[in-house]
Amino acid sequence: MAIATPSVTEACESAKRASRALATADTGTKSRALERLAEQLEERADDILEANAEDLADERAAGLTEALRDRLTLTRDRIEGMAAGVRAVAALPDPVGEQLDRRTLDNGLDLAKVRVPLGVVAVIYEARPNVTVDCAALCIKSGNAIVLRGSSYAQRSNATLAAVVREAVSEVGLPEGGVELLSGDRSELEALATAEGLVDLVIPRGGEGLKDALKAVATVPVMYAAAGNCHVYVHADADLEMARRIAFDAKVDRPGVCNSAETLLVNAEVAAEFLPGIAAELAGAGVELVGDGRAQAAAGTTPVGAATDEDWDTEYLALKMAVGVVDSLADAIDHVNTHGTGHSEAIVTGSEDVGAEFTEGVDAAVVYVNASTRFTDGFEFGMGAEIGNSTQKLHARGPIGLRELTTTKYVVHGDGQVRG
Amino acid sequence: MAIATPSVTEACESAKRASRALATADTGTKSRALERLAEQLEERADDILEANAEDLADERAAGLTEALRDRLTLTRDRIEGMAAGVRAVAALPDPVGEQLDRRTLDNGLDLAKVRVPLGVVAVIYEARPNVTVDCAALCIKSGNAIVLRGSSYAQRSNATLAAVVREAVSEVGLPEGGVELLSGDRSELEALATAEGLVDLVIPRGGEGLKDALKAVATVPVMYAAAGNCHVYVHADADLEMARRIAFDAKVDRPGVCNSAETLLVNAEVAAEFLPGIAAELAGAGVELVGDGRAQAAAGTTPVGAATDEDWDTEYLALKMAVGVVDSLADAIDHVNTHGTGHSEAIVTGSEDVGAEFTEGVDAAVVYVNASTRFTDGFEFGMGAEIGNSTQKLHARGPIGLRELTTTKYVVHGDGQVRG
Repeated sequence: MAIATPSVTEACESAKRASRALATADTGTKSRALERLAEQLEERADDILEANAEDLADERAAGLTEALRDRLTLTRDRIEGMAAGVRAVAALPDPVGEQLDRRTLDNGLDLAKVRVPLGVVAVIYEARPNVTVDCAALCIKSGNAIVLRGSSYAQRSNATLAAVVREAVSEVGLPEGGVELLSGDRSELEALATAEGLVDLVIPRGGEGLKDALKAVATVPVMYAAAGNCHVYVHADADLEMARRIAFDAKVDRPGVCNSAETLLVNAEVAAEFLPGIAAELAGAGVELVGDGRAQAAAGTTPVGAATDEDWDTEYLALKMAVGVVDSLADAIDHVNTHGTGHSEAIVTGSEDVGAEFTEGVDAAVVYVNASTRFTDGFEFGMGAEIGNSTQKLHARGPIGLRELTTTKYVVHGDGQVRG
Repeated sequence: MAIATPSVTEACESAKRASRALATADTGTKSRALERLAEQLEERADDILEANAEDLADERAAGLTEALRDRLTLTRDRIEGMAAGVRAVAALPDPVGEQLDRRTLDNGLDLAKVRVPLGVVAVIYEARPNVTVDCAALCIKSGNAIVLRGSSYAQRSNATLAAVVREAVSEVGLPEGGVELLSGDRSELEALATAEGLVDLVIPRGGEGLKDALKAVATVPVMYAAAGNCHVYVHADADLEMARRIAFDAKVDRPGVCNSAETLLVNAEVAAEFLPGIAAELAGAGVELVGDGRAQAAAGTTPVGAATDEDWDTEYLALKMAVGVVDSLADAIDHVNTHGTGHSEAIVTGSEDVGAEFTEGVDAAVVYVNASTRFTDGFEFGMGAEIGNSTQKLHARGPIGLRELTTTKYVVHGDGQVRG
């Protein structure tokens, strides 16, 4: 089945034209669009599943790994989940129009700093059709037009889902051109990343390869929802039972996601006491362990391979963990800042001062004291949903939710003030 | 006089090493560094003036225009002004540690979103030695290390000023390596813009040429303190006496700065009544006028040249103004969004609704109702000082003050929470 898709320029121009109406749409209209979207996802589940079955039956999909096929697969339950997610976004507070500052200046000018939509947001993502709906819902709610660039593997699923979104938007009187889907062709990446004047922000959701490809060419602002090489550091004064629970959860709960831990650092004072137990427990859950010499020696009967230099910098996203022994809090902080990606970092300690030194010293989006790194997530943080997790420092750091999809505008009212 | 300057990599590595101490310095220490800086600027005024005299006497400086020579020139009064500016920054609230959000999640996690320094900020600027001190003061106060890349024309002045800053920093026990000055060589631009892992933000203060040069190569985040093609639109229901004052001020008060107006738009209903007076007044102040056919016809006895297509897109930064007649508020908004640079835009109107339509419809950092565009400025906005004015939408839009030189970090405290 051939699906007609617009060129990048056509799509971006359409989104740009539609963006004004979306930016000024009131909260009720945007919420109604999302309610209609949720209803239609349910009503049109058969069409969506049929398109998805075609994507899965495509000979190209046969080459995918089981994990990737699973991400591509939609089911009736997953469609229900998408609808529930859209309703959750509909229920969130509208960020647009929120006043961040309001003051009367000495000269009588009334100064307000208000949240406004960014304009046109482009999202680049992998073969996960649910992202089409998640991202569209967040952009509609935040008053942004969206250009979706999914994977060509999911093109039929995405086309059906995007059509459902466009219909919902159109039903409430908003321009359907505010939701555009590209074909998934490789050439679209550079075209999107250089669409100056049309696209206000590009959000790539994908691996480091995608990030590097965009960095080399982008002239449009890009917000990287990037990798997480996360650490759990067990200080000498830690409650070791708590440390065991946190280290295990951070690695094993869901190893394929960016907020799971890849390295366990243990203070030398407690290595001999702590490591044998946690090593055995991790190994028992199927985790392959590698470590430095002291970790290998302290781990007891559990086999720990020799870690290479590369291990400390690797985001395994799998049941594998590097284990290192450090002599001090300062060494732990150094290790984290040297090898981490600035995503989520945790310390287990019995001391408030040690915790404060760690949270101050570690340069990352989220720093935990006595909790698992796995909580870094827009939903867990009470932001309702997220479009990714930013490890960069500008604009948004941490989960990218509705507010992070806005910019600000100063609106100044006077009665004839001049400066001269 | 040859001045030894570090390579870009040396300077950035030094700044990076020093950035941790600056980031965790308390408010009192940073303020003392600024107080000492202000005192030393006054004490060492003779050295500073001598270095500046050498810059001005250099054969290369002979080729500068009068305006550029004036910007390069320091006087005793200007040094006093710099010291006063530093003291003003010292008196501002410290943005570091400010809590933006604080919540207890249902699972008991205590979540705080706090402001933290960006790390290392690089500023690229023209031959204005006072910028060396202004930017250093803002970075020190916001806990950032700074790499200064001024113009080679001002190198002796900048070297003396940077030495004074480093001495002040060092006197309060902070690392002087947190303030680094480059030589002004052309090759430094690309090196700075690609210093990934060392530089957290590059701020170019300069023209569109600098912006384009950096856009082509930058892999480090860049915040453009960009050009202002600003408009004043006089609606049909405007108080024309107020409109006259605002249009005149916006053009004539200080034509060489980015918040001055370059285009005057007038609603067709009042063009014949309004234009002859303002045109005569502007011409009387030495402003060269160009306009569209209707503006030329309505301007009465004042000569108005024919505006070319290019005029509407030109930031004159001089005593020249384009004048256009539009048929409606919508046409005015379209014109502004098509030709403006998203800096500062003003409407003069007697109607709140019209004002609201303009402020909603115009896509710019600052939108004014019944006031001059000239107020866009960190000092005027009560932010104390600014490092430039951002016309981009990400991270900071409008004046870049202390808060805009920070990022955020989520600090999460638990008592053993795991997600699995």
